[in-house]
Amino acid sequence: MQLVKAEIIAIGDELLYGQIVDTNSHWISQELDLMGVKVVRKTTVGDNRTDILSAFGEAEKRADIVLITGGLGPTQDDLTKPLLAEYFGCDIVEVPAAVEAVTSFFKKRGREMTPLNILQGHLPSCCTYVPNEVGTAPGMWFEQNGAFWMSMPGVPHEMKKLMKDFVLPKLPSLFTLPIIFHKVIKTVGIGESWLADLIKDWENSLPEHIRLAYLPSLGHVKLRLTGFGDDKSKLEREIDHLIDVILPTIGKYVYGYNEESLETAIGKLLKQNGKTVALAESCSGGYISHLITSIPGSSHYFQGGVIPYQNQFKEKVLGVKSETLRKHGAVSEETVLEMAKGVRTLFNSDFGLSSSGIAGPEGGSEEKPVGTVWISCAGESINESKKLQLTQDRILNIQLTGVAVLNLLRICINQNNK
Amino acid sequence: MQLVKAEIIAIGDELLYGQIVDTNSHWISQELDLMGVKVVRKTTVGDNRTDILSAFGEAEKRADIVLITGGLGPTQDDLTKPLLAEYFGCDIVEVPAAVEAVTSFFKKRGREMTPLNILQGHLPSCCTYVPNEVGTAPGMWFEQNGAFWMSMPGVPHEMKKLMKDFVLPKLPSLFTLPIIFHKVIKTVGIGESWLADLIKDWENSLPEHIRLAYLPSLGHVKLRLTGFGDDKSKLEREIDHLIDVILPTIGKYVYGYNEESLETAIGKLLKQNGKTVALAESCSGGYISHLITSIPGSSHYFQGGVIPYQNQFKEKVLGVKSETLRKHGAVSEETVLEMAKGVRTLFNSDFGLSSSGIAGPEGGSEEKPVGTVWISCAGESINESKKLQLTQDRILNIQLTGVAVLNLLRICINQNNK
Repeated sequence: MQLVKAEIIAIGDELLYGQIVDTNSHWISQELDLMGVKVVRKTTVGDNRTDILSAFGEAEKRADIVLITGGLGPTQDDLTKPLLAEYFGCDIVEVPAAVEAVTSFFKKRGREMTPLNILQGHLPSCCTYVPNEVGTAPGMWFEQNGAFWMSMPGVPHEMKKLMKDFVLPKLPSLFTLPIIFHKVIKTVGIGESWLADLIKDWENSLPEHIRLAYLPSLGHVKLRLTGFGDDKSKLEREIDHLIDVILPTIGKYVYGYNEESLETAIGKLLKQNGKTVALAESCSGGYISHLITSIPGSSHYFQGGVIPYQNQFKEKVLGVKSETLRKHGAVSEETVLEMAKGVRTLFNSDFGLSSSGIAGPEGGSEEKPVGTVWISCAGESINESKKLQLTQDRILNIQLTGVAVLNLLRICINQNNK
Repeated sequence: MQLVKAEIIAIGDELLYGQIVDTNSHWISQELDLMGVKVVRKTTVGDNRTDILSAFGEAEKRADIVLITGGLGPTQDDLTKPLLAEYFGCDIVEVPAAVEAVTSFFKKRGREMTPLNILQGHLPSCCTYVPNEVGTAPGMWFEQNGAFWMSMPGVPHEMKKLMKDFVLPKLPSLFTLPIIFHKVIKTVGIGESWLADLIKDWENSLPEHIRLAYLPSLGHVKLRLTGFGDDKSKLEREIDHLIDVILPTIGKYVYGYNEESLETAIGKLLKQNGKTVALAESCSGGYISHLITSIPGSSHYFQGGVIPYQNQFKEKVLGVKSETLRKHGAVSEETVLEMAKGVRTLFNSDFGLSSSGIAGPEGGSEEKPVGTVWISCAGESINESKKLQLTQDRILNIQLTGVAVLNLLRICINQNNK
């Protein structure tokens, strides 16, 4: 089977000057990798005619498919569209459906258009117009010079939607792709080297055609199993069997598979058990409520939250005793437990969660340095609290508190079911 | 003065397959930009002879300096070093100082070396050995084929140390560098094409040596002015003057400059005015409180928040009248105003902010489709509410609500001061 080769070209001065991080190329790489398409090069060029044209020319020599992001804004410094027309030797013409789409995009939002916006509906005559439902710059598909080309806006969510709705589903009809099956096991509450140690015998016994990768991220470790073969469902069964073998060893750290996030898994768990939750977030400042409510349908199990950033509101809104605060301080087991119980009562929920800590950079003391955080989970017949000793970095501390609190809830729901 | 052009080549299969995000290229771009070196291209290639050699050849045609990261590990799949030797036609020879450095690196850490590690001290005879004090792969400096080349490990902290200690200090002795001054104007509440329309006369009148770029991101547009000349403080004065000229036209959309985020600007504004804020977030689910509390020192002006996700808690916790909810619904001007007033009273703050809307994907109706959001700001002598018609995407709706609420607060503080 012929290897299908892709190149990614990111266009924009802001990428070269380091003012924007190019997250698009990385995302596209991952998606293509999952489908067995090999990215052979990523190129970033500025808003410059010569550089863009040379990037097109070089990519064409090597790639079966060229994915281009950026340079599609309505302003004069955006060159991708005229240069694609020039490169393929065709004119830019009005595409009524595209003009209609950009017009209705503005109308729906009650915003007025400028003449520049209307020009966004004018496209090279040699491309296929691909509607962009979430932005004003259309996607453009070319079958030219022996390769496939897709031009997309640089705005990540617009690019992703065009990739997911149009490019990725189209690939199997254009190429014979290899058979690959991936499954990712998602763990929380255990470090990478600990996990590696736990599963080393299993890892060493994996067959040649199944590979394991460790993908650590903030507070999580993902284990990705990739199988190569010629029968997808056989690979799937094989990998599922391997997972069944290792689950007795690592099951208590596993919250889900593949794309499932910890907050999605928590939501599922709450729904399955018919339980609700409420949050009292001090040092995490609303971050955990935000994670939970990012999930569609979370209103079925999320009752509400309080962010009692000043101590007086821990008393006034949540009913924490002033004596507790005076005696043990806001960052203490006693306080987080009263917060968790208080928010559970206030919002009439099955579980109450809380956080209180020193996120930093200020506010630390010798006894309670920056990064000291207490978290708690209160239920009908359960009260769990935990002390975390985190980092010097405020944002990191907020994020790690989020992972720890959600994991504590997961543990509490599971204990509750025993 | 001749523009100094740089290219960055990142080498490694793991970068192409999306397993690692290349943060190096972005960092190098920023550092070079600050020194007035223009990055004209970034290229990522895999651990593959043909691709690496072609990247060298292409870079040489365009760049005065080529910065290469990665592909320097001790294993056979790391090809950068032998290919640099091949490309420049020289042998790989033992460099005693480099062997000594790698040996002592292992000794110091009490780790044993393999024969492969010793080979890390063997380098192309045509390079200058650049010691790597924090890792085992040395830096290599070449002056070949009319350009300067630096090869560095892909490990970010090793690369950064070599750049800071060796490459960046060396640049002024190799090139006459231009004087560059950047300033970014940050705006909110106006779209890119509207802004372009507002400032088109000013934009057209900018002198040749000062360039303008539009950098749109979620709900924001940044305007970057870049001046080229021979006197930095003169450029700074010139750019500041140009900003003074356009401020009367766009001032009401401008919240800050350069790296300043909207939430930082809001924090500064609250502090300067000695004011505090509290939030009642329904559809934004804690996201805005999270943005505000991400900023160090936010406890000086953030009193707290409530997330009354279920309607009953809009009544119980915030005192919204049940009649208001019954008559106008939760997503209405009347409800968000009572929420804003209620949270202001509960937390005894100068300003109360609120959001209520249909984030999606469920819960929309003909009258109030997904993406309908009401926001409000209540102060001592100010009550502002606004209806937003956002998107079909839940996460995007949450983020756009965040920008709109923070912007509403900015407007209210400024009105309050009039």
